[in-house]
Amino acid sequence: MSSKTALAVTAENTDIFEEMESSVQSYALSFPTTFDRAEGAYLFDQKGKKYLDFLAGAGTLNYGHNHPFLKSRLLDYISRDGITHGLDMHTDAKENFLKTFDEVILAPRKMNYVVQFTGPTGTNAVEAAFKLARNIKRRHNIISFTNGFHGVSVGAMAATGNSHHRNASGIPLGGVTFMPYDGYMGPDVDTTEYLDKILSDSSSGIDHPAAAVVETVQGEGGLNVASADWMRNLEKVCRKHDMLLIVDDIQAGCGRTGSFFSFEDMGIEPDIITLSKSLSGYGLPFAVTIFKPEYDMWKPGEHNGTFRGNNHAFVTATAAFEHFWQNERFVNDVRNKGKLLEVALNKIARNYPDDDLMGKGRGMMRGLSCANGEVASKIVRKAFSKGLVIETSGSESQVVKCLCPLTITEDELLAGLFTLRSCVEEVLGTGTAQG
Amino acid sequence: MSSKTALAVTAENTDIFEEMESSVQSYALSFPTTFDRAEGAYLFDQKGKKYLDFLAGAGTLNYGHNHPFLKSRLLDYISRDGITHGLDMHTDAKENFLKTFDEVILAPRKMNYVVQFTGPTGTNAVEAAFKLARNIKRRHNIISFTNGFHGVSVGAMAATGNSHHRNASGIPLGGVTFMPYDGYMGPDVDTTEYLDKILSDSSSGIDHPAAAVVETVQGEGGLNVASADWMRNLEKVCRKHDMLLIVDDIQAGCGRTGSFFSFEDMGIEPDIITLSKSLSGYGLPFAVTIFKPEYDMWKPGEHNGTFRGNNHAFVTATAAFEHFWQNERFVNDVRNKGKLLEVALNKIARNYPDDDLMGKGRGMMRGLSCANGEVASKIVRKAFSKGLVIETSGSESQVVKCLCPLTITEDELLAGLFTLRSCVEEVLGTGTAQG
Amino acid sequence: MSSKTALAVTAENTDIFEEMESSVQSYALSFPTTFDRAEGAYLFDQKGKKYLDFLAGAGTLNYGHNHPFLKSRLLDYISRDGITHGLDMHTDAKENFLKTFDEVILAPRKMNYVVQFTGPTGTNAVEAAFKLARNIKRRHNIISFTNGFHGVSVGAMAATGNSHHRNASGIPLGGVTFMPYDGYMGPDVDTTEYLDKILSDSSSGIDHPAAAVVETVQGEGGLNVASADWMRNLEKVCRKHDMLLIVDDIQAGCGRTGSFFSFEDMGIEPDIITLSKSLSGYGLPFAVTIFKPEYDMWKPGEHNGTFRGNNHAFVTATAAFEHFWQNERFVNDVRNKGKLLEVALNKIARNYPDDDLMGKGRGMMRGLSCANGEVASKIVRKAFSKGLVIETSGSESQVVKCLCPLTITEDELLAGLFTLRSCVEEVLGTGTAQG
Amino acid sequence: MSSKTALAVTAENTDIFEEMESSVQSYALSFPTTFDRAEGAYLFDQKGKKYLDFLAGAGTLNYGHNHPFLKSRLLDYISRDGITHGLDMHTDAKENFLKTFDEVILAPRKMNYVVQFTGPTGTNAVEAAFKLARNIKRRHNIISFTNGFHGVSVGAMAATGNSHHRNASGIPLGGVTFMPYDGYMGPDVDTTEYLDKILSDSSSGIDHPAAAVVETVQGEGGLNVASADWMRNLEKVCRKHDMLLIVDDIQAGCGRTGSFFSFEDMGIEPDIITLSKSLSGYGLPFAVTIFKPEYDMWKPGEHNGTFRGNNHAFVTATAAFEHFWQNERFVNDVRNKGKLLEVALNKIARNYPDDDLMGKGRGMMRGLSCANGEVASKIVRKAFSKGLVIETSGSESQVVKCLCPLTITEDELLAGLFTLRSCVEEVLGTGTAQG
Repeated sequence: MSSKTALAVTAENTDIFEEMESSVQSYALSFPTTFDRAEGAYLFDQKGKKYLDFLAGAGTLNYGHNHPFLKSRLLDYISRDGITHGLDMHTDAKENFLKTFDEVILAPRKMNYVVQFTGPTGTNAVEAAFKLARNIKRRHNIISFTNGFHGVSVGAMAATGNSHHRNASGIPLGGVTFMPYDGYMGPDVDTTEYLDKILSDSSSGIDHPAAAVVETVQGEGGLNVASADWMRNLEKVCRKHDMLLIVDDIQAGCGRTGSFFSFEDMGIEPDIITLSKSLSGYGLPFAVTIFKPEYDMWKPGEHNGTFRGNNHAFVTATAAFEHFWQNERFVNDVRNKGKLLEVALNKIARNYPDDDLMGKGRGMMRGLSCANGEVASKIVRKAFSKGLVIETSGSESQVVKCLCPLTITEDELLAGLFTLRSCVEEVLGTGTAQG
Repeated sequence: MSSKTALAVTAENTDIFEEMESSVQSYALSFPTTFDRAEGAYLFDQKGKKYLDFLAGAGTLNYGHNHPFLKSRLLDYISRDGITHGLDMHTDAKENFLKTFDEVILAPRKMNYVVQFTGPTGTNAVEAAFKLARNIKRRHNIISFTNGFHGVSVGAMAATGNSHHRNASGIPLGGVTFMPYDGYMGPDVDTTEYLDKILSDSSSGIDHPAAAVVETVQGEGGLNVASADWMRNLEKVCRKHDMLLIVDDIQAGCGRTGSFFSFEDMGIEPDIITLSKSLSGYGLPFAVTIFKPEYDMWKPGEHNGTFRGNNHAFVTATAAFEHFWQNERFVNDVRNKGKLLEVALNKIARNYPDDDLMGKGRGMMRGLSCANGEVASKIVRKAFSKGLVIETSGSESQVVKCLCPLTITEDELLAGLFTLRSCVEEVLGTGTAQG
Repeated sequence: MSSKTALAVTAENTDIFEEMESSVQSYALSFPTTFDRAEGAYLFDQKGKKYLDFLAGAGTLNYGHNHPFLKSRLLDYISRDGITHGLDMHTDAKENFLKTFDEVILAPRKMNYVVQFTGPTGTNAVEAAFKLARNIKRRHNIISFTNGFHGVSVGAMAATGNSHHRNASGIPLGGVTFMPYDGYMGPDVDTTEYLDKILSDSSSGIDHPAAAVVETVQGEGGLNVASADWMRNLEKVCRKHDMLLIVDDIQAGCGRTGSFFSFEDMGIEPDIITLSKSLSGYGLPFAVTIFKPEYDMWKPGEHNGTFRGNNHAFVTATAAFEHFWQNERFVNDVRNKGKLLEVALNKIARNYPDDDLMGKGRGMMRGLSCANGEVASKIVRKAFSKGLVIETSGSESQVVKCLCPLTITEDELLAGLFTLRSCVEEVLGTGTAQG
Repeated sequence: MSSKTALAVTAENTDIFEEMESSVQSYALSFPTTFDRAEGAYLFDQKGKKYLDFLAGAGTLNYGHNHPFLKSRLLDYISRDGITHGLDMHTDAKENFLKTFDEVILAPRKMNYVVQFTGPTGTNAVEAAFKLARNIKRRHNIISFTNGFHGVSVGAMAATGNSHHRNASGIPLGGVTFMPYDGYMGPDVDTTEYLDKILSDSSSGIDHPAAAVVETVQGEGGLNVASADWMRNLEKVCRKHDMLLIVDDIQAGCGRTGSFFSFEDMGIEPDIITLSKSLSGYGLPFAVTIFKPEYDMWKPGEHNGTFRGNNHAFVTATAAFEHFWQNERFVNDVRNKGKLLEVALNKIARNYPDDDLMGKGRGMMRGLSCANGEVASKIVRKAFSKGLVIETSGSESQVVKCLCPLTITEDELLAGLFTLRSCVEEVLGTGTAQG
């Protein structure tokens, strides 16, 4: 019945999408099939075809699809009619989440933070963080960094570098000043020195910021990695200029880099941290903004939202904390696979000395930077045809991003990397490799 | 371990909340207990105390808590490892949702709309609607109405009237002009005439808007009701001035007023409609923005978000369409209970001719307007002590809002109203009633 | 040499303008000749043709062109090498200006105000007023009124209603909310009640303003007149809501309405007043913002500008105070001519009962409102061909505006009105008049 | 009568200023006397004390005070009742200005530009330039540079770096992105490369700008000088990224650097140029924005203002073009004195190897950078006590700025420099100099 019908492809299983769903879809274009079910590192489409998942919900499925422990807890909870939707009311599930989050995650790391349930999407968590920072410091400006991605609602989008998203806003985006991320001005320049200079100069034109917001690894921005030194220097600049440090750990957090928080070994203490994506562990919408208790200056209800109490997510998040984070096993495993990934990607890259291939990233947040978006796009399209779901990121979509589940087995990981290498070979030739 | 510990109440079951959760909570302050499970119109706390729910997730639980048909579908889906998190990829669950939404909801109403999955919260849907309208018309301004509520991310909040929320933004909110809602200038003034005058006057200072956004009943704004005439006139003004009409049906939609869309009998054709809250039917985070196909001018990925593919919500939403919307039974039932509510609230109000009590609202979106917020607050606090969960709305929190599940039985509804009446009596005296 | 040469008309005396001057010119299009000199109420072009001036520099030449007393003072000052350009330094000329302004204007009216030299244009004075108000109240919003005109720099333009100017800004204009001016909603509606309601409603969407800015007569807006009652009510609303009242007296001040300040008989005490246009008395660039001493919260140099010390203007302004404002003679004369104007314009209007003609305005700030801009435009074009320089104003340029010098003789005034009437007759026919 | 009276100093000749003038004054604080008349390079106060003027109206009096040739022309024009105030109408004086500007200034330099009379202050010219650029390119963003100064009305102030001015705006300033000026990142970094990188990166967060605005020498910013190479590179970046190049030549233009336009020898062709300050030559308010004819996309009246036709300024500007710019004599003289200044300032600086003294600037726009604002402030205060009027600039007011009239005689210049050196000696000791 839609006017779009005329454009519909004939393939039976996609026409309702052609007919009814907006052209705003993006991943759906890269993976032209209809998925039906999933387990661990695998997706299955309606025809039963199996795909290895190196996308993992864009970093949302760190524990894989439908992890059995989390699934069983969720089924129990639903079966016993646990509260599903709880606004911001106290519930049993939230109580367990808070306790476990404190006992398993925060307390062992000596982190004293208050939790705000912000609405269950990353952009909500970022909007809350910005409001809080602006109100605490009574200043409107926030420092963000080149190639940063923090969401697409107007407040968060102002801090998102991507012009494709920015231009869609239809209004100028204000209240944010962009500064060069680590490495942006070349390997020898510490860009926090430039930031410090700008902030120390009362005529630089940069209004005194309330805060700086930063990702330790820029997931959407192309897997750019901030060094621990740079992060420490950034924190120093924030302290010197009386600004809050906000770490947006939405993609890099929850274990992706080899520790729960991506900044754990860096010796910094962010004032505000945003978490989402893999926080529920099961792919359910969930986000929190956590901050030092002295910054809990919210008045009741100042930031609200209908779905702040997605209790199913509390249940699976609690289960994930219990299952994966009570000891070092999981983390060690992630670190090992991260090294494996690093070695494998670098090895692929070395085979193509003339093609600008480069391994990038940290922990299990890694990828292969290509000469341009066209090459990367060819690789991921080939990969899909070979049963590997994988995507690009970066300002020119030039980085093939390996965001496999952290729970992937080594064999699965190697199989995926083997497929990836064969795709690279089909696109760029066999390179200089001897075997 | 938190510095908040000092403030913690001794009550054992709330101290993790005192210790760990931000002071931004609001509902939790009104209902000081910890809820554990829920069924239909009832909530149960950890001590087993039973509460009748006249809040229903602020309009999110139109079919009550954990409806057995939806629950069973959800359990099956989870059990069979259906896709949980699907980004914007095509999935079996999304296919079923789209088909059923079209067959059961849109097609029978001769509505031809494209669906955008915007991220699963209402504010996301509104942000998407505004972007789309601004880009279609290449204008930045949007008309919103006094006492309107559309969310608290910066883009949506610009259209939200409430100063408590607005002031929390920490930056001036732009791109929106507020106009008086139906009835704002008194019963005899059609405020769309003022809007038309302002828009016809090239020196009014109001920049030509891309769109107007409106709720047919203002849920958070205090249950103010727009008449069908006014809505038609608003649509005419939009057509005359080449503006899009956006109906935010997030709270009033999904059956709350006695039809799926709140504007069905009004003879208008909104260009863009936002839906969320009760859309999943089960309280799961879900939102869509739907619009006429000719306005599907999105480029791939311009608006994105991690949780656009919350497939659990697709499953329960589909089940809800099937269960409640295939025939007129549910709607007729809602209308009958709406009338019952209206009569009962008016009867209470009439008992207090000197107390400014007034029944307000439409369908099962009704409440009791009190002289001020203090009176309303006393009533809802008393109600909670009597096992009735109910909240206020309005700019001064002066309206006691009855948002019971649409599936509530008549007996439950009458029981709740009886409790409400007794609370009113305790607060205002017995009034003039004879029995 | 310009690429515009090709378009140049052949008329010898205009081609340098065609070749070199931007198409942004407007008055020059209405009066296609080159003026050479001027005296009193008359302009003379290069060919010696004489024009009666009913435009008077858009209200800048209240004392006519090149008034001999002011001219003689200015010649003396220049001849003796008085300071011409003084930044904001203390000079003899500024000292005399301040003393005379106090003795002749402020003190007799019991007005205690501090003077800020803001840069010599009206828009500068308005920008300064807005900054001051926003900083005093620590709020960003300012109330302006439909059809208001306050200048075209970005800060002032935000408060200017005209869309032709607003659209030229190239960016959205923020920080201002427009409200209906006196009479905008019909003669029976006191629009300050709407303003009060909006400001009293914490969910109206209107952020608490720092100030309201208003013209008592809207010069550019079409000679709309605010009543004394309305102005008093506006002041009350400002007091009630802790807002400053800014009267922009740039066009209506300096005697135009029959008193030095346009609001003198209204019983109000604006917190901030802007003056410019006829302030120098001689057409020289000059503007001040004056405010109650308790609001002088400026830090040194916060608002600056190169031409704040245009000492020639100080000299002529001082001379004008001395010559015109030491007794009641001038004011009485203006009032009498204002009445004459009123009677004459109303008489013309009455002759055309079917043509929507209407006399408008106050004092010697009056005009003839026509059915539309086309009629008004025809009238002023005919007038120019008959040696009368006169312009339109209003949102549709529908008002023929008589802004003759206040010093015009009655004979000159009658001659101009006679010409105007004959132009009306040529455009609309002889009407119903019998003689 | 003012409440400020209590604070008034007893000195008779300043109390009207204490009583009546706002605390926003700045220069007046540095030069606590009342000036009465001026000639050439000298100011005289009411007591007859003579001051050598090394401030020259902050660069407005390039030809000195009350230059006799300009004065005589102005007296003649006023005496013969030439048009004083002409809105934007064609006048004899404007005709002469345009012809002479073309013949003497533009044509010999092969510059083909259209002239917009923007309102007579620099900030007006900048506001017009920004509007034009934004409308031509249909983009809101403009690149400005650290330490740039372009005025204090909201539109221009957004591009002004100084936080003292910015903070006074009371609202966030948008639509401008600041980039590092030449030399800001050290002598070896070409900051246009960073600009190019940012603009080439679609995820840098910097919205595609309509234009870049730049001063070749930053007068208020502390006499920072852009090299010709840097300016050419900036132009290249603008061309590459389809942006307009706006040169704000308000302070550096009109001969100050040794040529009429400050960029004449740089091999660049700005799209838009702003001129003001010394344009009238006599200190009268005057500003123009000139641009390439293909960019004259203004619609009539889109940018307006009461004082765009300050004909007195047209007369003196024309006289200045005729007197100073018909041959190379004046320019050569300025260049010679510029070299003398350079040598003298460097010599002073070299005497204080441990005090961070440094000569800065270009042409006759030079100064002495001190270790901090306190040192600079002591020097200028001492200078005033010795009869030398001189001021500081720079973000910390750390640069003593020598902006003497370009017409100063060598003897006067040397006398002033001698005084300056003695002040430095009094503040910093005699240094290492031998005589």
